[in-house]
Amino acid sequence: MSGLSNHDITFFLLSVGVLLGMARILGEVARRLHQPSVLGEILAGILLGPTVLGALAPEFSATLFPPEGAIDLALEGFTLVAITLFLLVAGMEVDLSSCWRQGNVAIAVGVSGIVVPFAISFPIAWFLQDALLRTPPPDPLVFSLFFATALTISALPVIAKILLDLNLYRTDLGAVIVAGAVMNDLIGWNIFGVILGMMDSGDGAHHHPARTILLTLGFAAAMLTVGRWLCDRALPWIQAHASWPGGVLGFILTLTLLSSAATEAIGIHAIFGAFLFGVAVGDSKHMRQRTRSNIEQFVSFIFAPIFFASIGLKVNFIDHFDPLLVLVVLGVATVGKVLGCGLAARWSGLPSREAWAIGFGMNARGAMEIILGLLALERKVIDEPMFVALVVMALVTSLSSGSMIQRVLKRKKPLRFTDFLTSSQFVASLEKVDRLEVIRELSERAVRGTALNHAEVVDMVWNREQLMSTGLENGLAIPHARVASLERPILAVGLSKTGVDFDSFDGQPARLIFLVLTPHEDNGAQIEILADIGRRFQDARLAQQAADSTNYTEFLALMRSHEPDERFRPAPNGG
Amino acid sequence: MSGLSNHDITFFLLSVGVLLGMARILGEVARRLHQPSVLGEILAGILLGPTVLGALAPEFSATLFPPEGAIDLALEGFTLVAITLFLLVAGMEVDLSSCWRQGNVAIAVGVSGIVVPFAISFPIAWFLQDALLRTPPPDPLVFSLFFATALTISALPVIAKILLDLNLYRTDLGAVIVAGAVMNDLIGWNIFGVILGMMDSGDGAHHHPARTILLTLGFAAAMLTVGRWLCDRALPWIQAHASWPGGVLGFILTLTLLSSAATEAIGIHAIFGAFLFGVAVGDSKHMRQRTRSNIEQFVSFIFAPIFFASIGLKVNFIDHFDPLLVLVVLGVATVGKVLGCGLAARWSGLPSREAWAIGFGMNARGAMEIILGLLALERKVIDEPMFVALVVMALVTSLSSGSMIQRVLKRKKPLRFTDFLTSSQFVASLEKVDRLEVIRELSERAVRGTALNHAEVVDMVWNREQLMSTGLENGLAIPHARVASLERPILAVGLSKTGVDFDSFDGQPARLIFLVLTPHEDNGAQIEILADIGRRFQDARLAQQAADSTNYTEFLALMRSHEPDERFRPAPNGG
Repeated sequence: MSGLSNHDITFFLLSVGVLLGMARILGEVARRLHQPSVLGEILAGILLGPTVLGALAPEFSATLFPPEGAIDLALEGFTLVAITLFLLVAGMEVDLSSCWRQGNVAIAVGVSGIVVPFAISFPIAWFLQDALLRTPPPDPLVFSLFFATALTISALPVIAKILLDLNLYRTDLGAVIVAGAVMNDLIGWNIFGVILGMMDSGDGAHHHPARTILLTLGFAAAMLTVGRWLCDRALPWIQAHASWPGGVLGFILTLTLLSSAATEAIGIHAIFGAFLFGVAVGDSKHMRQRTRSNIEQFVSFIFAPIFFASIGLKVNFIDHFDPLLVLVVLGVATVGKVLGCGLAARWSGLPSREAWAIGFGMNARGAMEIILGLLALERKVIDEPMFVALVVMALVTSLSSGSMIQRVLKRKKPLRFTDFLTSSQFVASLEKVDRLEVIRELSERAVRGTALNHAEVVDMVWNREQLMSTGLENGLAIPHARVASLERPILAVGLSKTGVDFDSFDGQPARLIFLVLTPHEDNGAQIEILADIGRRFQDARLAQQAADSTNYTEFLALMRSHEPDERFRPAPNGG
Repeated sequence: MSGLSNHDITFFLLSVGVLLGMARILGEVARRLHQPSVLGEILAGILLGPTVLGALAPEFSATLFPPEGAIDLALEGFTLVAITLFLLVAGMEVDLSSCWRQGNVAIAVGVSGIVVPFAISFPIAWFLQDALLRTPPPDPLVFSLFFATALTISALPVIAKILLDLNLYRTDLGAVIVAGAVMNDLIGWNIFGVILGMMDSGDGAHHHPARTILLTLGFAAAMLTVGRWLCDRALPWIQAHASWPGGVLGFILTLTLLSSAATEAIGIHAIFGAFLFGVAVGDSKHMRQRTRSNIEQFVSFIFAPIFFASIGLKVNFIDHFDPLLVLVVLGVATVGKVLGCGLAARWSGLPSREAWAIGFGMNARGAMEIILGLLALERKVIDEPMFVALVVMALVTSLSSGSMIQRVLKRKKPLRFTDFLTSSQFVASLEKVDRLEVIRELSERAVRGTALNHAEVVDMVWNREQLMSTGLENGLAIPHARVASLERPILAVGLSKTGVDFDSFDGQPARLIFLVLTPHEDNGAQIEILADIGRRFQDARLAQQAADSTNYTEFLALMRSHEPDERFRPAPNGG
């Protein structure tokens, strides 16, 4: 470490730490507001970069994130590894086999989702480039190709996340969208690889375009055939003969780095190699779920935030914000994509509502356009205002995609009981041991601050309880009622150290008592919440730990850290 | 990424990839030879660095690992983060409460394990420094203090690993060793922090020693009291209110980086802050096991190998290998440590055999001495031959520690059936459906290449089977026998697609059939292997997946990736 001085080490660690911390905090805030966390992560970089901190405290900003020198190089190396690993994960999300399974619709949507936006964007870029760029591009063809591609590629990870949130990931509709996005990504990234080969790499080391294009296509073809086959063979061998999980982790990360280095050497960017290797290795049925989630979690929550925050450091987003340009880019991108995918789905025979849901689903761009834009900016194919417009377009399409699907399909997120809990409706230690007394106490908590009548609520819950006991196994009881004039579900939770007799099958007293009040008209709400509670506490150990919680935060922490992961739940219809 | 050229990016990714790949491969080889993987990881660096590759192909080596410039700085930044995270994990291993629980013995062993080696090493360094160093040190006091400390600190992660391997981690003896090592580490690292403050940091930015010492002790005290308390409060809050597991992962990694930056700013090294924060956060009972293992796995299998391999790049290990110096360092280190800890344990009333086991257990140095040596080398407190001697000493003490404990205590590793499996004793699809026929077929596989008589083995197994059926639940059956004149256990495994009637409790036919032959004299071997098989297949899903394997590699991969983790198994005596 002789090259980095004491000062360099201090500020390098500080800047990575501050970047990660801010990105995670604002990512959480975005999530709280039901927005993708990438929004908060980029915002963190904008706050720390030239746009805000650089304008307010230029010297401090220059010490923390110097534009050149040892700290800058170390930071660049680190973010390079971060983006490489992010693309690995994005590639691992690609499920080639589901793509084939969805057959014609997916192919139609995927291909039309490329051809239509490309056909709309390319002439706009070609004929209007003087209006789109303040600095004329060195090569109009490369700019036009780049612009059309950037408005064409979807963002598979963002799309997958939106579908998961809406509980659509495992449905037929979700499968078509994902398969379409996979087709789209594979074709789009190959086109982009070719364009990258045509760009000036920035250090004078010109590569011959034809050679680069041939090598790119050859690399992609080899990775998706031979590479995929080799990964599928290698994984069980490594699991059998190397340490667990170190063997597989080391194998995947080593080959990601080598594959990235190979594509960078060809003359296209390192991320292309990482993405393709991700596809090749992620497709193997021998990839264990634990390995996958181990890599995904570390990358999504550590490397990705650092990378996206570093984007905000590159450009002054206020100086280079051009509202008209943003509107044009956003409009062209949305019209091309929604039309291309929606019409293809409609012509493939899907009902109109679903066809447009597919169109809006595919419109999410998220991270990918931002990465492409950054590469183009560095190679001076676009200028700062265009980069800012691309970033805004990517964020807006990602933000709107989920709500547009919800509006078109009238879908709602599945209810989880944790969404309705508050600390004032939580009793850490019930004093009463009689069933009716406990229901009284919890009802009193539940109606606090509402217009509900305490006695009426107790009556309703007690009447329901008389019909059939709500005591379940593992010390769980869920007294409940549907209440007229209620707008949203209300919960109260009580823990009993001694236990309350709820007449359960297994004869055990209830130690976890959930009082659930739901709107009378909304039958679905009651069923979803009861099912959510019941499913969670099938795990006897979790039930025991929950009953032993000493305060609200501890109880909530336990629930959140055992949130079921929808993606890996068996599909409801076995698909 | 404008600072790194296309060439820089290619070779930076290539060098990290090659470093990681070689380190993982040689780490696995070391593990195969029952040695710590750090040995293989450092060897990977020695092969790739000036010692071998640099001597054979100097130009290629200089391209891959240039001694200065952009690639070097990016690589240094990355290995800096790697070592920081490694120290975080080392700190997380420290269990302060178990340290108090073991009370007087642990304190006696911990303190004496510092005082005695220090008292022996310091005068040697002070009076013999001309003989120990070719280049006289700038400050004899700093060198003597460093030498004494480097020979004093134990390596908690290595010690924990050895005890796990020997199944001693959860015993009283193991607890004393770990608690002693914790005491030792905490005191030793604080001393080292102080010495680091006295060293010239190498870039002319002298810090006042007294100020650094005060700040170091203040930081350590604050981290272990207020910091620990705050972490314990913060973790449940984050788990309750942020996304899972991103909230906790982001919190831990952000604060690790900031804490590292703080200690680097004080004038001691960044790793000290990471270690102390690891102790503070790892001690919280709110740390979920999944978070812990997620961080540990990523760090141990990705970041640590890259860091340890990078050590081999620093120095030419052949040029600077001085056999006499190595012997002196090794001798002083071992005598001081084994005497110090062994005598303290003996005087605390432990039986002689256990006391010496503790002495040898605490003698393992592993990674820590290497890291300390590297810092001293960079600050020119020691020269290359001394660095090489410290590395060799650290490796040899780590290698010998486990086998010395085994020899002193006569302990053996617990047997796992996977240690005795070979592909020739595996039948992926049994054709027979009759119990006796199947036993015949598997016995035939088992006796292949041995002097055993097939008919006799079948008789023995069949007689045992008549006494009581060996069919268990989940489609498992374990016919077995103890065989005279056998030297080590022999296994044969057969999978049956149709199932074989083994008269099990649950009436299910057996689909997984293990034939186990063990030496007649060794009753323990039979019990351990049968228990290992039985315990694993209590998991019905795993049993089903295993029975569905189509070949040996797939079966073995499944077994290895579901190896039970001894550390987190409840202690046999509830402790």
